[in-house]
Amino acid sequence: MKTFHTQERIRFMDTDAAGRIHFMFAFRFLEIGEEEAMRALGFPSTGIGTVQALDLPRVHAECDYLAPLFYDDVIDIATRCERVGEHSITWGFEITRDQTVCIRGRVVVAVVDRQTGKAAPVPQQWRTLLEEE
Amino acid sequence: MKTFHTQERIRFMDTDAAGRIHFMFAFRFLEIGEEEAMRALGFPSTGIGTVQALDLPRVHAECDYLAPLFYDDVIDIATRCERVGEHSITWGFEITRDQTVCIRGRVVVAVVDRQTGKAAPVPQQWRTLLEEE
Amino acid sequence: MKTFHTQERIRFMDTDAAGRIHFMFAFRFLEIGEEEAMRALGFPSTGIGTVQALDLPRVHAECDYLAPLFYDDVIDIATRCERVGEHSITWGFEITRDQTVCIRGRVVVAVVDRQTGKAAPVPQQWRTLLEEE
Amino acid sequence: MKTFHTQERIRFMDTDAAGRIHFMFAFRFLEIGEEEAMRALGFPSTGIGTVQALDLPRVHAECDYLAPLFYDDVIDIATRCERVGEHSITWGFEITRDQTVCIRGRVVVAVVDRQTGKAAPVPQQWRTLLEEE
Repeated sequence: MKTFHTQERIRFMDTDAAGRIHFMFAFRFLEIGEEEAMRALGFPSTGIGTVQALDLPRVHAECDYLAPLFYDDVIDIATRCERVGEHSITWGFEITRDQTVCIRGRVVVAVVDRQTGKAAPVPQQWRTLLEEE
Repeated sequence: MKTFHTQERIRFMDTDAAGRIHFMFAFRFLEIGEEEAMRALGFPSTGIGTVQALDLPRVHAECDYLAPLFYDDVIDIATRCERVGEHSITWGFEITRDQTVCIRGRVVVAVVDRQTGKAAPVPQQWRTLLEEE
Repeated sequence: MKTFHTQERIRFMDTDAAGRIHFMFAFRFLEIGEEEAMRALGFPSTGIGTVQALDLPRVHAECDYLAPLFYDDVIDIATRCERVGEHSITWGFEITRDQTVCIRGRVVVAVVDRQTGKAAPVPQQWRTLLEEE
Repeated sequence: MKTFHTQERIRFMDTDAAGRIHFMFAFRFLEIGEEEAMRALGFPSTGIGTVQALDLPRVHAECDYLAPLFYDDVIDIATRCERVGEHSITWGFEITRDQTVCIRGRVVVAVVDRQTGKAAPVPQQWRTLLEEE
């Protein structure tokens, strides 16, 4: 599947008193990567958590921190759909500064019917969009 | 009107690379102060932004920073309803560490009819709760 | 003085359960506007809170919320240095979506000698940069 | 090893436009759980990221989201040191509302010599504190 790239900058509020990015705010950049990948793929933009009649809650999120990021660093967020399951979508992320991979992340999004609150199959149209080269 | 007190602690994610609380996160403590004051007053707890059929968007928020706060500081948030207007409520805040006032804040909340999206009068019951000694 | 423009997008984490941008996160965009204005002016980029031997703590921050912002809105942050005082710098902000001004903000930054912790005069070089047309 | 319990409340800023806690802010509660566990264990309180001459950067953080959390929910954060490695400490977390486990989390903290920036052994005194029943 295709890899999408988004550029962002570390802001002062993303740092903490240890002088680096606070680990929590790495997840902001995962969210941005996923949003921009979905936009590039042509998903209807009605909210990362809610598309059409489906809710898209995150069921798993993780980051590995390989190298620190600092205030004002310009980063590249590489985002790639890793897997389209029966009822979930898995995204993988690599955040790099210059040529250094600083953070690797993964997010698993469930597809849920908003009416019933139960797991729903990934729509075939999405699968086609997500799995295409 | 009455002053309400809430204790909180500065967390590491509230700090920035200058080693102090980041100015943005002061507003988190204003929100907590307002929530706890409303709870203590007996407001129905259906969300700070939405009570009954009314929306409560903030139309103004400000802080004066008088002294720095650091990681792990225990703070007292003193919250007091300063004014009940025709269509708005004004809250005042003082955040102190030990006996030192570190931040003074103010938030103005509008009362809006959720159906029409227009300004609505502050319900008489709220006025009574907010203005009582 | 000159007005600088920066474009940003409202992210899902900036919203709250009322379906709009949470009032606190507006201050993120003020910070970004100030950072980008200082970068455009040629300030040395060693951190918004710390430039050379000076600390730049915020002593006041405020927002007026004129119209709601929603997830995925693209905003323009117009940033303008409003005043260069003896020991402080005042920035003004207007956040617009399309042609609608949604938020007006103001931030006052103190200039502090890092060694002594006392107010320091705004360096003449900064004054020249900030006040030029 | 011992399990520590901390109570917190979901604040409005922790929610998003899907009406639930935003997945990123779960990590705030992991940080609070770890801080309070270390305080209860008697660690010197000089900052979660920096204790004595050692830095404690997070090298891994993850959450599984089992059930949604909503505004104003009171949660219990159960924190337990899962493993003391040669150069790292692993914490496990369970966030429950009433009797329902809503989030399971894990954080791996590296121990780093601040002077050299290299991995340092977990001090024996810490190991004793962390591993005791």
